[in-house]
Amino acid sequence: MTWLRNAWYQAGWSEEVKIGKPLVRTILGEQILIFRKADGSAAALLDMCPHRFAPLSAGNISGEVVTCGYHGLAFNAHGVCVHNPHGPVTSAMRVRNYPLIERHTALWLWAGEPDLADPDLIADLSFIDRTPEPARIAMYLPTKANYQLLVDNIMDLSHADYLHPETLGGIMTGAKSSTRDAGDHIVAEWISSDCIPAPAFVPMLPPGARADVWTEVVWRAPSLMVLGTSVVPTGTTKTPEDDSYTLHNMVPETETTTHYFACNTRRYRLDDDELSAMIRPILVKAFCEEDKPMLEKQQARMGTPDLWSLSPILLQVDAGAVRVRRKLDSLIAAERAAATSQPAHTRPLTGDVVQERVSGQVVD
Amino acid sequence: MTWLRNAWYQAGWSEEVKIGKPLVRTILGEQILIFRKADGSAAALLDMCPHRFAPLSAGNISGEVVTCGYHGLAFNAHGVCVHNPHGPVTSAMRVRNYPLIERHTALWLWAGEPDLADPDLIADLSFIDRTPEPARIAMYLPTKANYQLLVDNIMDLSHADYLHPETLGGIMTGAKSSTRDAGDHIVAEWISSDCIPAPAFVPMLPPGARADVWTEVVWRAPSLMVLGTSVVPTGTTKTPEDDSYTLHNMVPETETTTHYFACNTRRYRLDDDELSAMIRPILVKAFCEEDKPMLEKQQARMGTPDLWSLSPILLQVDAGAVRVRRKLDSLIAAERAAATSQPAHTRPLTGDVVQERVSGQVVD
Amino acid sequence: MTWLRNAWYQAGWSEEVKIGKPLVRTILGEQILIFRKADGSAAALLDMCPHRFAPLSAGNISGEVVTCGYHGLAFNAHGVCVHNPHGPVTSAMRVRNYPLIERHTALWLWAGEPDLADPDLIADLSFIDRTPEPARIAMYLPTKANYQLLVDNIMDLSHADYLHPETLGGIMTGAKSSTRDAGDHIVAEWISSDCIPAPAFVPMLPPGARADVWTEVVWRAPSLMVLGTSVVPTGTTKTPEDDSYTLHNMVPETETTTHYFACNTRRYRLDDDELSAMIRPILVKAFCEEDKPMLEKQQARMGTPDLWSLSPILLQVDAGAVRVRRKLDSLIAAERAAATSQPAHTRPLTGDVVQERVSGQVVD
Repeated sequence: MTWLRNAWYQAGWSEEVKIGKPLVRTILGEQILIFRKADGSAAALLDMCPHRFAPLSAGNISGEVVTCGYHGLAFNAHGVCVHNPHGPVTSAMRVRNYPLIERHTALWLWAGEPDLADPDLIADLSFIDRTPEPARIAMYLPTKANYQLLVDNIMDLSHADYLHPETLGGIMTGAKSSTRDAGDHIVAEWISSDCIPAPAFVPMLPPGARADVWTEVVWRAPSLMVLGTSVVPTGTTKTPEDDSYTLHNMVPETETTTHYFACNTRRYRLDDDELSAMIRPILVKAFCEEDKPMLEKQQARMGTPDLWSLSPILLQVDAGAVRVRRKLDSLIAAERAAATSQPAHTRPLTGDVVQERVSGQVVD
Repeated sequence: MTWLRNAWYQAGWSEEVKIGKPLVRTILGEQILIFRKADGSAAALLDMCPHRFAPLSAGNISGEVVTCGYHGLAFNAHGVCVHNPHGPVTSAMRVRNYPLIERHTALWLWAGEPDLADPDLIADLSFIDRTPEPARIAMYLPTKANYQLLVDNIMDLSHADYLHPETLGGIMTGAKSSTRDAGDHIVAEWISSDCIPAPAFVPMLPPGARADVWTEVVWRAPSLMVLGTSVVPTGTTKTPEDDSYTLHNMVPETETTTHYFACNTRRYRLDDDELSAMIRPILVKAFCEEDKPMLEKQQARMGTPDLWSLSPILLQVDAGAVRVRRKLDSLIAAERAAATSQPAHTRPLTGDVVQERVSGQVVD
Repeated sequence: MTWLRNAWYQAGWSEEVKIGKPLVRTILGEQILIFRKADGSAAALLDMCPHRFAPLSAGNISGEVVTCGYHGLAFNAHGVCVHNPHGPVTSAMRVRNYPLIERHTALWLWAGEPDLADPDLIADLSFIDRTPEPARIAMYLPTKANYQLLVDNIMDLSHADYLHPETLGGIMTGAKSSTRDAGDHIVAEWISSDCIPAPAFVPMLPPGARADVWTEVVWRAPSLMVLGTSVVPTGTTKTPEDDSYTLHNMVPETETTTHYFACNTRRYRLDDDELSAMIRPILVKAFCEEDKPMLEKQQARMGTPDLWSLSPILLQVDAGAVRVRRKLDSLIAAERAAATSQPAHTRPLTGDVVQERVSGQVVD
């Protein structure tokens, strides 16, 4: 599996999980129960009782205690067993707990070694917080394609001209583009000077105006991108108030399926509900009706999650995506090399240990 | 495949197969045609013509002769070819026949070496015969889970308190329990003295009465269990007339699907149709709406039929199930060791033999 | 995969593809886009852009140019890139093109080495062209079974007596049959003298007449058969005008699915629309409602595309089918032996080449 484990992954939007309304979501192939405790804070456990492997989500949750619906073992939000109706609680009775932090209207889950879960590693998405709720447009698109294909899609926005001609396209192919590796992030930039604006931008400009359009994508490992854009009449100096930022966050569900989280924000006309109502269908059309189907068809044609195995022809426009894939590959390789000193509590039990348990604990 | 082959498996309830209404059922991964001959007796053949592998069930049955609907080869209930419209009948033209015996309102199929098929090895379920038909409650639950998970479920009745709280639960966790290996069977027993009876038992007791409840499960290889129970007012000596027996028979269909046959009987109030009408929905709720979904969720979460490979935490309540798994494992291992001297007629033909046939019989 | 690559396969009926209405069909496991150019001629390309593997069918076709809907690469009907909006066109930018010829109302695709695609190797089906359109009955039956099972079905027409008793059957089992290998084709023949005609033939004969029926199947590699038949009153000398020819062409889609193309023609009563209207439902019943379901059940029971692996019992009636399987096996083996000198342009790129591209072309 080509996944970085020691990373924060968006497990969902905050509003997807409520007290009494937990969420079961598969992330990096693991089925995870995300729930809110009585105090409203969220927690995440592997959705599988360590006794007989029933899903904990088939039991019930009260306060911060999750009780298995099959034999009644109860666990707290740390995954520690707090009640065994059938005998003593032992230290072996625990469910994997995932560090979970709520920030920027989203739930962030650490998929790797808990000791390494540093909240400062969560990407700064304060642009979401700065945007009043009515002006934010958040989406969730479950997509049947490998997450790296979804990253490629954003790192190479040249596709907009062909896939989104009626909304966002028309200005990328002729733009001056560049990419750069900035260490902990990779940047791709497109500058379109004095262009005919993309259809979606026309209402934001004076009638008939040509435009200077600036577009930038900033990628951070493993698969989170912030797309910034500004559209101003040709020759106008853009200010920060002209910027719009959109999160594109690609969270692996399985090798060939991805949770695609998007959130569009802006810094202008924040009280203009009519503008918000106009932007939403543009994004729905582009992301849901054009990107998602194309990515799913691409994955279906590929028949494998591994792009390189098919020897793709590469174009100049792939520069950003290739940089990202290389960087991510090297991060994953480094993580695997380090994993040779994996701590004991994440190692699965061996058959010997199981037999010992069977012999020693249960059958006299 | 972790299956015992030399064993009687319940292929169905007698009433499932009628003259002119055969049954095709997969048992231990083999697709089997079960039909009644003109005299009403039942027979079982592999549902596959040895010529071109068409299902025999796609042909027709007349008397005891099954004719393939593709090229007209006809076989009797022993699997011997009785007609080849295209040339001589040879000894190679035969379909695998399964010993089949009808007993205790059920059809019993021997899945292994025919010479070893001893009818005396069929479990004694005469409690079914003793119960008049209106007081029997027979069920068939196709369940998407490995059969050993279904056996575990009955060997450990502590789950009733958590999975069946509104019907059968509430008295098991506090019961005095024990298990013992009695050689050809394994027994698990629960004794609940002076308890508040499970909801389903309340109508059988004086209003407000507390109860002494006795529960016993007797397992026989490979996966048949008889659950006995009696509920009497606290301090009353139970008699055989207080007993209720329920068959729980788990027949492997594939590695991850099981034919679950259940039959509830009793020795009291046999003419009380109202009582029967009250018991049925209780069992439907417990077995069909609670056990079956939980077992299927458990199997789905496990993602493998092999429980041990996941290193389960074991509890005291698993004692009976673990004894059974160990016993069955050793029986399967012994059978495999003995199979090194497998008789010729059950060995598949080698490629050489096929080539010889192609050369010698057909093409001149 | 047991497929002959250097062969013409029927990709469809001509009428299935129109200008502006392309066809995507999987043949030998490859997803192929078949379309008509502005001049009406048909072409075939692998339905996958070599850049990011989006299906070309998700883009658009104009004239003879296919433009990918994802990033705008455009290819002509030869698979050569004619436009790269993002930089220079290189020789590596090409899509696999399949030689495609239209003949006998069908589209013929060469699945192997393009240099070997000799149109003279297409089977002579001029009997289709000679039959006026109203008297032709063409069908397409997608069938969930390995193509060799479909070939077996036609090479052994004895099945008609059992599978098609109400239409075509009743005369094959007693017929004098023979098979012969004629070098580039294999012939199976059945002669039924003075027989009670099959039900479908009765309306073509005087009331109550017995008949002489001649049936012949001519197979050509890989899986195309022409079934000739004539039915005349007993003792009458048949003339060419008594003949009816039916194409049965079995084109592998995957290992276990087949495109079954059939076309019935005749040389008598060509203007008799009533006769055509009578023949069609007979063929629909036999091919669609009897052959196809039986072949699919057979494949399902087999559980493998490899007949020999199951050690079938062979009968005299299998002679033709076994001859065909042997011949095809030897052709496939010969083709594989020759493939050791595979030309470079059909070899997949190695990982090294990919890395070189990534290093050299894109990222500076």
